[in-house]
Order: sequence, then C-alpha cells, then structure tokens
Amino acid sequence: MSLADSVLTGDRLSLARVLTQVENDTPDGRAALDALFPHTGKAHLIGVTGAPGTGKSSLVNQLALHFRKQNKRVAIVAVDPSSPFTGGAVLGDRVRMKDLSGDAGVFIRSMATRGSLGGLAQATAGVVQVFDAAGYDVIMIETVGAGQSEVDIARLAHTTLVVEAPGLGDDIQAIKAGILEIADILVVNKADRPGVENTEKALKSMLDMAHPTQRVYLHHGTPLVPSGHSPQVQRTWGEMEGGWIPPILKTVATEGKGIAELIEQIEKHAAHLHVSGDWAARERARLESELEAALQETLMSQFRERVSDQQYNEVMRQVFERSLSPGEAVKKLTNGRAK
Amino acid sequence: MSLADSVLTGDRLSLARVLTQVENDTPDGRAALDALFPHTGKAHLIGVTGAPGTGKSSLVNQLALHFRKQNKRVAIVAVDPSSPFTGGAVLGDRVRMKDLSGDAGVFIRSMATRGSLGGLAQATAGVVQVFDAAGYDVIMIETVGAGQSEVDIARLAHTTLVVEAPGLGDDIQAIKAGILEIADILVVNKADRPGVENTEKALKSMLDMAHPTQRVYLHHGTPLVPSGHSPQVQRTWGEMEGGWIPPILKTVATEGKGIAELIEQIEKHAAHLHVSGDWAARERARLESELEAALQETLMSQFRERVSDQQYNEVMRQVFERSLSPGEAVKKLTNGRAK
Repeated sequence: MSLADSVLTGDRLSLARVLTQVENDTPDGRAALDALFPHTGKAHLIGVTGAPGTGKSSLVNQLALHFRKQNKRVAIVAVDPSSPFTGGAVLGDRVRMKDLSGDAGVFIRSMATRGSLGGLAQATAGVVQVFDAAGYDVIMIETVGAGQSEVDIARLAHTTLVVEAPGLGDDIQAIKAGILEIADILVVNKADRPGVENTEKALKSMLDMAHPTQRVYLHHGTPLVPSGHSPQVQRTWGEMEGGWIPPILKTVATEGKGIAELIEQIEKHAAHLHVSGDWAARERARLESELEAALQETLMSQFRERVSDQQYNEVMRQVFERSLSPGEAVKKLTNGRAK
Repeated sequence: MSLADSVLTGDRLSLARVLTQVENDTPDGRAALDALFPHTGKAHLIGVTGAPGTGKSSLVNQLALHFRKQNKRVAIVAVDPSSPFTGGAVLGDRVRMKDLSGDAGVFIRSMATRGSLGGLAQATAGVVQVFDAAGYDVIMIETVGAGQSEVDIARLAHTTLVVEAPGLGDDIQAIKAGILEIADILVVNKADRPGVENTEKALKSMLDMAHPTQRVYLHHGTPLVPSGHSPQVQRTWGEMEGGWIPPILKTVATEGKGIAELIEQIEKHAAHLHVSGDWAARERARLESELEAALQETLMSQFRERVSDQQYNEVMRQVFERSLSPGEAVKKLTNGRAK
C-alpha cells in the first residue's frame, strides 16, 4: 500500500510523513499530492488571521474543541511566516497541546518560513489538500499578522475570520480596509478588556466604508441584516458575494465565551456560500491560483535549463556595474521577448 | 529633455510623475527606470519595520528631521500592503506632513497594495531606484507589520531597523527570530511606557538565541561589544556579517528622545558595511532578487503568448473536476517538462 493510500485509510503516522514530504516539496510529496488530489474538495477551510496579541491561538483551540463536540475531525495548520521552526513546537503549540492532545480527531501542524513567500503559500496549500483528502471535516488555517502573505494564505479558505482585540495600539492599521476585504466574520476577542467598545466602533465604521451601500449592525449572535434587498458587493475574490454582511462577534476565548455564537456564524457562512454558489467560486479561485504558482515555478526551472550559468552571471555582472538595468538584463536573457 | 533627465536635475514635479509611472509599471515607467539605473547606487537605504502601534511613523519622522539637520536629502517610502490607498494620503501621512512639509529636501511617497505581493515589492524597488538616482542621500523604507512581505521589502535596505514597543500584547510573536534575523538595529520605542524592561529583556534573550556564540548587552548609545574575536554569524542574506551585533536602543519618538543615539548607530552600521564589504554584498543580493522578479514576470507573459486561452481553460476545467492535479496540469501545459 502506498503512503497516499495509508493516508486515505486514516493512518496518522503516514499522514505525518506525507505532510513532511509535501512541506519539503520532495518528489514523493508531489506524487502523493497527485494521488490524493481526486479525494479533496470536501473539507470546510476556515482561515483565522489577526495581529499578534489578539489571542488567535486560544480562539482556534476553542473552536476546535467545539467542532469536536459535533464529532467533526479537525486539522489546524498554524502558519507563521516569521518563524524559523517547522513541523512542530512553536510557542503556542505547547499551550494548545494541553487542551487538544490525545484526541485522535485533531491534528495540528505548524508551518514555518520557506525560502520565499510563494514557497510557504504553496506548501500550505499542499498541506491543506492532504488534510482534506485524509477526511478532516474542518481545516483551520491560522496566520499571524495582517500582511500580504497572510492575505494570500487566508485566500485558501472558504470562510475567513479576522480577529481583533481591544487596546492593541493607538493606530488602526491592523484593521485597515485591505484586511477587512477578506473578512467573512470579524471577531473582537478579549472582549472583557477595556476599550472593547472602541474596537467595535472602529470595526463598524471600517465596515461601513467597505460596504458603503449596506448598513452593518453590531450584535451578539444573529446579525441584524437590514431589511430589503442587499446589493451585491464586489469582493477581492473577483466574484460577487450576494448579501453576506460580515458580522462582528465578541469573544473571550480563554473563558470559552462567545464561541458557540461564533460557530453558528461560521456555519451560516458555509450555508450562504453553498446557496449562493460562492463555495464553488472560491474553490475555483483557489485552484486557479495554485496552478499559477506551480506554473511559475516550473517556468523558472525550465529557464534555468535553457540559460547557462556563465551567460546569467555575465548579465548579472553588467547589472552590478550598473551598465545594464534589471529590465534590460531580462530582455537579454529572454531573447528580447520581454513584455 | 526627457522626464528621466528632469528627475536628474532635481525637478520635483517630474519626480512625482516618474514615481507614478513606475508604481503603475507603465512602458514609460520602465523606460525611465532603464535610463535612471546607471545613476543609482549612492543612497543609504534604511528599512524600518515593526508591528502596528510601535510608533514607527513618528520615529521615521524624527529620523528625517535629524538627517535634514545634517543637510542630507531624505526620501520616505511608506509601504503598507494592507492599504488600498496609493500615492498619497494614508493615515499617518497627515501627521507626518505637519513636521516635514514645505521642506524641499524631503519627499514622502506612500505605496499601497498591488495585485500581488511580488508587484508591491517590485514597485517599491523601482520607486527606491528613482529616489536614489534623483540624489536623495537617505531613503527610508517603512513597512507595517512583521510578515514575510515586510521581510522581503526590508531586504531592499542596507540597514534595517526593527521597532518594538512595550505592552503590545502578551505574546512575543512580533519579535520572533524570523524578524530578528533581518534586524541590524533594534529599537524599543515608546520607552517611557510601563513594561519597557520586559520588552528589552525579551529582545535580549531572542537575540541571544539568534546569536548563540555572542553575548549582547543592553545599552543606551554605544554597544558594549564583548571583547575578543566575534565569530561570524550566518545571516539570512546568505553572506557572512562579521562582528556586527544588533544593538538595542530605547527611544521616545514623540519627544525626540534617543534619536541622536539611533542616528549614531545607523551611521556606525553603514561604516561597518563599507569596511566589511557587506555594503557591496547587499547591493548584489538586492539586484539579484530584483532581476529574478522581473524574469519571473517575463517568463509568465511569454507563457501566456505560447498557450492559448482555450488550452489553458480546458486543463483548468479538469483541475476543477479534480480529475487532474495542479501538478499534473502544469506538466501538461509545459509539455511534460515540469521540474
């Protein structure tokens, strides 16, 4: 039986080995991905992103515990582009392990920095595919921060949670429109802290700006969707998202407060995606960007076969001397066929 | 006179126009970059990165004011991957303008999100080149957050400042090793706040882990370099950085405290880079990665000319159906010459 087949039967050790192969982008890893791919497409992928200090990891833990109560198998992929650690013990994991370890229905995987951002996003996509094929019902992809890398990784998800917390700083850069655009659900964690009203207010007014034709109401549970027709809103996905207004929820993850309400909203969002056809649209967008990344990598390695090191280094030398601009160098190396 | 020539004579309006062309990656912008490239390589590029709430922008302002007192021309490139605004008024700029506006020796440019991270890093590199050619002595590249995108953009710089502040959260993700690896100078801003000792201590122990064979001393001004030979430390740059130990400095930017000491360290670092040969090594690394990015873009557009939309869409359809994995699809599209 191949390693991929063992993964399909639910063998944890084989799963761990395939994850490592996929993370390291080995030939075996690529073969496993090809073999597992037809079995993917069933899991609910949930992205959880937010600045350091918002308590994302505790929140993800609590969500995992709740999903387990529903008998769902849960995978957690913790992506930290700034961490040099991989496959195991990053800081939050030890805390996390205490609650979730020993539960065969939970699998936690930490992803860390690769040579390039592209590498990390690609490796994360692969790891998510393996979990999906292995039959995990819910896959949570947790990313640190609010940079473009997190946005790219969050785009893997069907449902994206953006987590904030009161009093994280006196500017509101973490909740700028760019991050709000990817949010399906906004969570104000640590909601027992002073300043929670200000955070909610700031989020609300940012949302109003992002969705100018819709009004958003703060709530604790069910969103108060304004009556009447909700105009469609252009999303960064490039597709139309009819009628979903990102709700703002308050939680205190360390005490388990607000988690049930959050799960309810996550499930509502999944139902919304299915009804509106956006589930399929997001799947397509994700596969398309995966294909593009793989394509880019292959084109580059084909180029390296065509152009000799000597040729490349000579051009590079002229760039170092500043007698040739990078743009002119590319034209030379690609036979003047630069765009 | 061409627009590029006008930039070389110091015309601000032409500069602004070329910056816009370069940001938008227009044919005129590319031509201007080619024309300006031989005039680059003189400026000191300073990266300033840190999480929201650390007061980076105030710090950059204060540094700019001090560099101006030394009669240096200063450009500030504020990069915010999460902002949809470009070329103008992001939040911090209005504050910033108050101190620096009306000074012809200062030019501030805000860069915002492009289609992709690669696009933003490339556009930033181009904008920095234009300022360099235009004769700005110091170019500060300010980035928000601690993600991979910020790391990539920080790599443009000769000297990278990583800014922290006390009490930004109860985890230390923002100061993880990944970010420390790119730091040439660590700044604890808002050093009049409670908790400053804890932040310093955390930074110090992270530094000790990153540079295990060296000891780092906290100081307020001159670093206390341990006596004896400092072993060379492997940096993410891939080159060896002999003997530079990132100092930790405390500042209160809003009151101008600690700025003179910080400038002193920045100048020491520049001198160190020149003496050790690392200045040239960083220039090479930067140009190399710029060339690679431009190459990748060109290879992709050449591919799009070779493969018809129909062909591409047919393969894509099979991927959507999950009868073909993304890896297999790439092999098909590139004639089986996948890596």
